[in-house]
Amino acid sequence: MNNEKNLIEKYLLPLAQNKESLFLKNDAAYFKKQNLVISTDMMIEDKHFKKSIDPNLLAKKLIRINLSDIAAMGAVPDGIFLNIALPKSNVQDWLKAFTSGLKSDMKKFNLKLYGGDMSSSDKIFLSLTVLGRTGNYCHKKNYTKSNSDIFVTGCIGDAGLGYELMTNDSIFNCSKKSKKRLIQKLLLPEPRLSVGKQLLNNVELCTDISDGLLGELSFIASQSNKQANIFLDKIPLSFASKELFMKNKKKKNDIWEIILSGGEDYELLFCLSKKQKIKKNLNEISKIGYFSSGKGVKVFDCHGKEFKPNKYGFSHF
Amino acid sequence: MNNEKNLIEKYLLPLAQNKESLFLKNDAAYFKKQNLVISTDMMIEDKHFKKSIDPNLLAKKLIRINLSDIAAMGAVPDGIFLNIALPKSNVQDWLKAFTSGLKSDMKKFNLKLYGGDMSSSDKIFLSLTVLGRTGNYCHKKNYTKSNSDIFVTGCIGDAGLGYELMTNDSIFNCSKKSKKRLIQKLLLPEPRLSVGKQLLNNVELCTDISDGLLGELSFIASQSNKQANIFLDKIPLSFASKELFMKNKKKKNDIWEIILSGGEDYELLFCLSKKQKIKKNLNEISKIGYFSSGKGVKVFDCHGKEFKPNKYGFSHF
Repeated sequence: MNNEKNLIEKYLLPLAQNKESLFLKNDAAYFKKQNLVISTDMMIEDKHFKKSIDPNLLAKKLIRINLSDIAAMGAVPDGIFLNIALPKSNVQDWLKAFTSGLKSDMKKFNLKLYGGDMSSSDKIFLSLTVLGRTGNYCHKKNYTKSNSDIFVTGCIGDAGLGYELMTNDSIFNCSKKSKKRLIQKLLLPEPRLSVGKQLLNNVELCTDISDGLLGELSFIASQSNKQANIFLDKIPLSFASKELFMKNKKKKNDIWEIILSGGEDYELLFCLSKKQKIKKNLNEISKIGYFSSGKGVKVFDCHGKEFKPNKYGFSHF
Repeated sequence: MNNEKNLIEKYLLPLAQNKESLFLKNDAAYFKKQNLVISTDMMIEDKHFKKSIDPNLLAKKLIRINLSDIAAMGAVPDGIFLNIALPKSNVQDWLKAFTSGLKSDMKKFNLKLYGGDMSSSDKIFLSLTVLGRTGNYCHKKNYTKSNSDIFVTGCIGDAGLGYELMTNDSIFNCSKKSKKRLIQKLLLPEPRLSVGKQLLNNVELCTDISDGLLGELSFIASQSNKQANIFLDKIPLSFASKELFMKNKKKKNDIWEIILSGGEDYELLFCLSKKQKIKKNLNEISKIGYFSSGKGVKVFDCHGKEFKPNKYGFSHF
């Protein structure tokens, strides 16, 4: 486990000994009687974004990273509480752009604004709490008891590559078009709400990949007391990241590191036991490996040789 | 209305057109079907506290300012979601002290920890979302339709005076004991949960005084299309603030300004129509004035002369 998860386990888990918290192992808390899931996520200037970012886009990303947790639970978006702390200068223009993005995504995802808090602050600080509606079920498990198969939605690694290209223009050879696409994936992720809901009752577990594929897999492996095995040639890649591999042959391993451990993809990661089957009409689903007895995560290249990454996921600490 | 409330009205209220939000006029959102109220409040380094504050105390204050909203709604504390952003240095010691305070107040107020988010940050940023349980009613009105009487709980102005004494040691002559008591009221407010609940169905409206007495009264007056009239000799004062008046006779008006407009008292402000009566067994309740036709807030001294404050409550913007 990474440092962040260690700190949570050491200091906060002892205070969260109630069934609604799902023992802090999941993407949201689950209130069965009220048919609600609730989750909360922050975005902080100079940690998650730069001051220069368009507030319209920032509002959308704030909503979407929170909705990704709702998607992972298999719930339906319901409403939000919004905390905003921001500098006094230019506050009207900033709020105008921010609330315009908010309005647009609230409409897109059918969300209500229920409340919040506002304060001045030297740096921008945003915190959103999101409510999702559930029926009688949600994805409340974050471990597997069997040697289940491992699946992901969409393409993996785009957001991490986008982040690297945005912060260091010369790190890789890359066409303008691909760079734009990778950064777009970072700035405006698409929460997998429809897939999350369709997987309900059909999978062993489901979570979103917010802290990198290897980070999430390591956590599930440790919770499950199993070993995750994944295969580089099964990991779904976008055209843009494939182009990056072609144009930077000597940096192949660096690119894989970023794809495997970079955060903020907000795709779903889920597991199926041998008895479970996905509905045929689910698009953009890839099987990337399986669990076995053992522990940790093993990554194999196309020759069956083990690829040993330098790090396993993203941690703030 | 102050700038903060103006910004909320202009940019956020248009997005909160749903009955659960209570149109952002109240201390919390109300989910009637789920018997829940939900509220959220932030605390930011250098805005609400200094880095040097004891994290144990900070955790308690964070819980209590949020519970004050639950008290104002007449609800029962249920659970919290906690977002923490903090510097990497000394993180273990900080979290140890913070979660110790958290644990102590979670026990005192019978709260569960349901979830949250953690991040690194240059400055400390805290955000809490609190859930409260309700029966079939809560204080969901924030206006009066009649010429109702105005009441408050406890003593007014201690937190504001404590803040001034903490930031400027020489501003007033004050005994060590009184200074300590006033600062204590600022650092560790007592949410009026019991009173809030006992007032259910007996009052026209109930809110907490987080942004100063005059700030809250101005807002209610504008929502009610009425004039609030309050009397300085009716405002309940602590021994410590009375001592301040005695020892600083030339600064009488300055002290009144702070008492009337200083934030963070977290006492309750409520109104009774002429037909309504408080239960006899409620302690620490003071009638400080009444509403009449007109608008704004008028303050009268013991000679019936109008006292005109320089400002009306606290605003972040």
